[in-house]
Amino acid sequence: MKLVVIGGDAAGMSAASQARKRLGPDQLEIVAFERGHFTSYSACGIPYWIGGAVTERAKLIARTPEVHREAGIDVRLRHEVVTIDPDRRLVIARDLAGGGEVRENFDHLMYATGATPVIPEWAGVTASGVFGVQTLDDGAAIQEWLASDPAPRTAVVIGGGYIGVEMAEALLKRGLDVTLLEKSAQPMGKTVDPDVGELVAEAIRGQGIKVVTEAHVDSLETEGGRVRAVVTPGGSLPADIVVMGLGVRPNTALATAAGLPVGPTGGLRTDRRMRVEGTDGIWAAGDCVESRHLITGEPVHVPLGTHANKQGRVAGINLAGGYATFPGVIGTAVTKVCELEVARTGLTEKEAARAGFAYVTARVESTSRAGYYPGASKMMIKLIAERRTGTLLGAQIVGKAEAAKRIDALAVAVWNRMTVEEMTALDLSYAPPFAPVWDPVLIAARKATDAVHKAM
Amino acid sequence: MKLVVIGGDAAGMSAASQARKRLGPDQLEIVAFERGHFTSYSACGIPYWIGGAVTERAKLIARTPEVHREAGIDVRLRHEVVTIDPDRRLVIARDLAGGGEVRENFDHLMYATGATPVIPEWAGVTASGVFGVQTLDDGAAIQEWLASDPAPRTAVVIGGGYIGVEMAEALLKRGLDVTLLEKSAQPMGKTVDPDVGELVAEAIRGQGIKVVTEAHVDSLETEGGRVRAVVTPGGSLPADIVVMGLGVRPNTALATAAGLPVGPTGGLRTDRRMRVEGTDGIWAAGDCVESRHLITGEPVHVPLGTHANKQGRVAGINLAGGYATFPGVIGTAVTKVCELEVARTGLTEKEAARAGFAYVTARVESTSRAGYYPGASKMMIKLIAERRTGTLLGAQIVGKAEAAKRIDALAVAVWNRMTVEEMTALDLSYAPPFAPVWDPVLIAARKATDAVHKAM
Repeated sequence: MKLVVIGGDAAGMSAASQARKRLGPDQLEIVAFERGHFTSYSACGIPYWIGGAVTERAKLIARTPEVHREAGIDVRLRHEVVTIDPDRRLVIARDLAGGGEVRENFDHLMYATGATPVIPEWAGVTASGVFGVQTLDDGAAIQEWLASDPAPRTAVVIGGGYIGVEMAEALLKRGLDVTLLEKSAQPMGKTVDPDVGELVAEAIRGQGIKVVTEAHVDSLETEGGRVRAVVTPGGSLPADIVVMGLGVRPNTALATAAGLPVGPTGGLRTDRRMRVEGTDGIWAAGDCVESRHLITGEPVHVPLGTHANKQGRVAGINLAGGYATFPGVIGTAVTKVCELEVARTGLTEKEAARAGFAYVTARVESTSRAGYYPGASKMMIKLIAERRTGTLLGAQIVGKAEAAKRIDALAVAVWNRMTVEEMTALDLSYAPPFAPVWDPVLIAARKATDAVHKAM
Repeated sequence: MKLVVIGGDAAGMSAASQARKRLGPDQLEIVAFERGHFTSYSACGIPYWIGGAVTERAKLIARTPEVHREAGIDVRLRHEVVTIDPDRRLVIARDLAGGGEVRENFDHLMYATGATPVIPEWAGVTASGVFGVQTLDDGAAIQEWLASDPAPRTAVVIGGGYIGVEMAEALLKRGLDVTLLEKSAQPMGKTVDPDVGELVAEAIRGQGIKVVTEAHVDSLETEGGRVRAVVTPGGSLPADIVVMGLGVRPNTALATAAGLPVGPTGGLRTDRRMRVEGTDGIWAAGDCVESRHLITGEPVHVPLGTHANKQGRVAGINLAGGYATFPGVIGTAVTKVCELEVARTGLTEKEAARAGFAYVTARVESTSRAGYYPGASKMMIKLIAERRTGTLLGAQIVGKAEAAKRIDALAVAVWNRMTVEEMTALDLSYAPPFAPVWDPVLIAARKATDAVHKAM
């Protein structure tokens, strides 16, 4: 039996490794095609490598091609798959280094091509010095550009989502003069509610990053094929480097050409075992698929490494004859912006409204530790609860050290459809170095309960 | 209408404050008797005040008697209640300062007398220099003793539970030569499993605290009424101060004298609204009551400030005509021992076995942040799951910074009776500064799922 994997990062190689764990090389041959130079790396770590917190590229690589090969996985780097023929169970790949073509038949196909950054068709957008941040090759290219002579001194980051904000900070740490452009009223506008985004904007500005909101880009100015500036209605912003942080789209070109089904989000449709719908033995996972949102029931595209790993593992177990499922997501995410920790789970107000929920909100300020204990810092929790039932729909946290990971307790509460009233009784951990005697989560639950009662 | 409160700390004053929120002074008169000098303080913070992390006693006080009085609560400090007469709805208190007697009739009575340290009947145990750590007055007495001349140089802490371990560290920080005596094989033997306790013992010893396990105390040696040493079969341990950390018992003397019902744990029996069983208008909360363990269904006595506050709030809401419940506890707790963070929720192995569960365990080591991210530290998670169903019964965590608060996500999972298999899909937060791409909680859930499958 043969498994062919397309894409050598988290989703694809998790699947390959899980399958290998269950079936030895005599039972399952595994060939993995990867377009780039690396396997099994942490794309999420790239901003920290650019910023210098992570000192070596090698640290971002969980498993090198050599390690995979030792496990009996035939990794072919710099091979781009150009055709999938589901009927003939055939994959055709181009050797980007050698130029030849490779054909591999498969019994199982693992589709894990990830996502590609959204790049608008602006004049100049293909100039050198304009980067997406999606693959480790992208990261390496940025590092090389930053190390070039003369060294870039000005940067414009376009898009204020996670990647944009993290890259803005990274470039600031590298000593560049950084401007962040965001088309909505606040950075992270898709991620958190405006009142929370306001706190994020403040923190970013406080670090010395220029933040331009409600920004529009007309084009990029270039000179000799290199980017020089970002042209906006308000003037030209000098930019020796431009980073694109406008989000990503599922990379499904190959799949759609092969007739595989794509959902309304643009991601491949799979069942909960990660089998591509309507196929036999074709599996998909990671940034190229869509998931089910467990609160709204709607399909969503949430390109995060944690889902890619889980889905890849599930696909690998199933294709090797086991049983595992990926039921869906609830929109949990976390990031660190300078010293500020920002986290969310479930639905934001906008998302709740779009899904048709009537809701109440509660926002509380508290501290990460007992107020009297050294190192206590302020944190804010916002809860969104369904109006009639009091069911927790979503939560957002902003704070400093030790604040954001509290989102996990709230994520488990959302997952289990707890009401905010039941949450007021939750037996959460307390000791002065860890929380006030009323953990901020409990205070927020109390306030949300009051809001639910008032709205009745 | 009149409410009389017995006990001016967390439980009693939470109840008083909640009642006051709902009913103004013209609707409800509130009299609160407190034996000591302080109200609404953090007893849990005492070790940190002794150790110096908290610099002033005042910081431990959430609400002074003056603040309560401004809210229309008639606080009577240094008043010890000596009789409750439920039939005549009467309370008699002794003025410890003035010597007189006070009588107050009540419509509602709030019983919140807390707990008293277990003090065995050893010779010498009543000498000066022997302290429990239960009230802020206890803390003040210890501070005074440590500041006396000549300054105490040797300390013996008897009992290696939370308080014992925290006090041992505090006294070490004050420069004393500290020995911790624990009668079981490991410190925190009642709290965590032996394999986890071993890690705690190591950490304590690593700080320079002498730990004697399987210890037995014969008596205390005194001189001129002051403690001098702790006598054990293995010899005499010099002790200029002895701290008792052998746990506490519900302080129910007054209640039992009044015929109020006490359960098998020694704590007062209440319903979920915190009304004392069989009474009308007598409420109880805090360290003097027993709670229901939501996993075993058994009554338990868990004297923690977080429960006292929740229960007090619930009692206050109910006695003022509202509706709130305290359904029970699941055994969540956390502490910091030197740099080590230790947390638990649900049942330990011993507790699970005693409750009749067949179970499997899984123990994993991982890191608090992505391995490549600066500041990542090792942490251990142990899960206990019911053998057939895979239901999560309990969890324990040992690690350094950012480890222990992960217990909250596990506590919410226990609370909701999740299976470890469902937990593998949980949408927990991930970003390199906060977790590896597989959060330790998820890795543990995976391993526990494997253990459940193997045991089928």
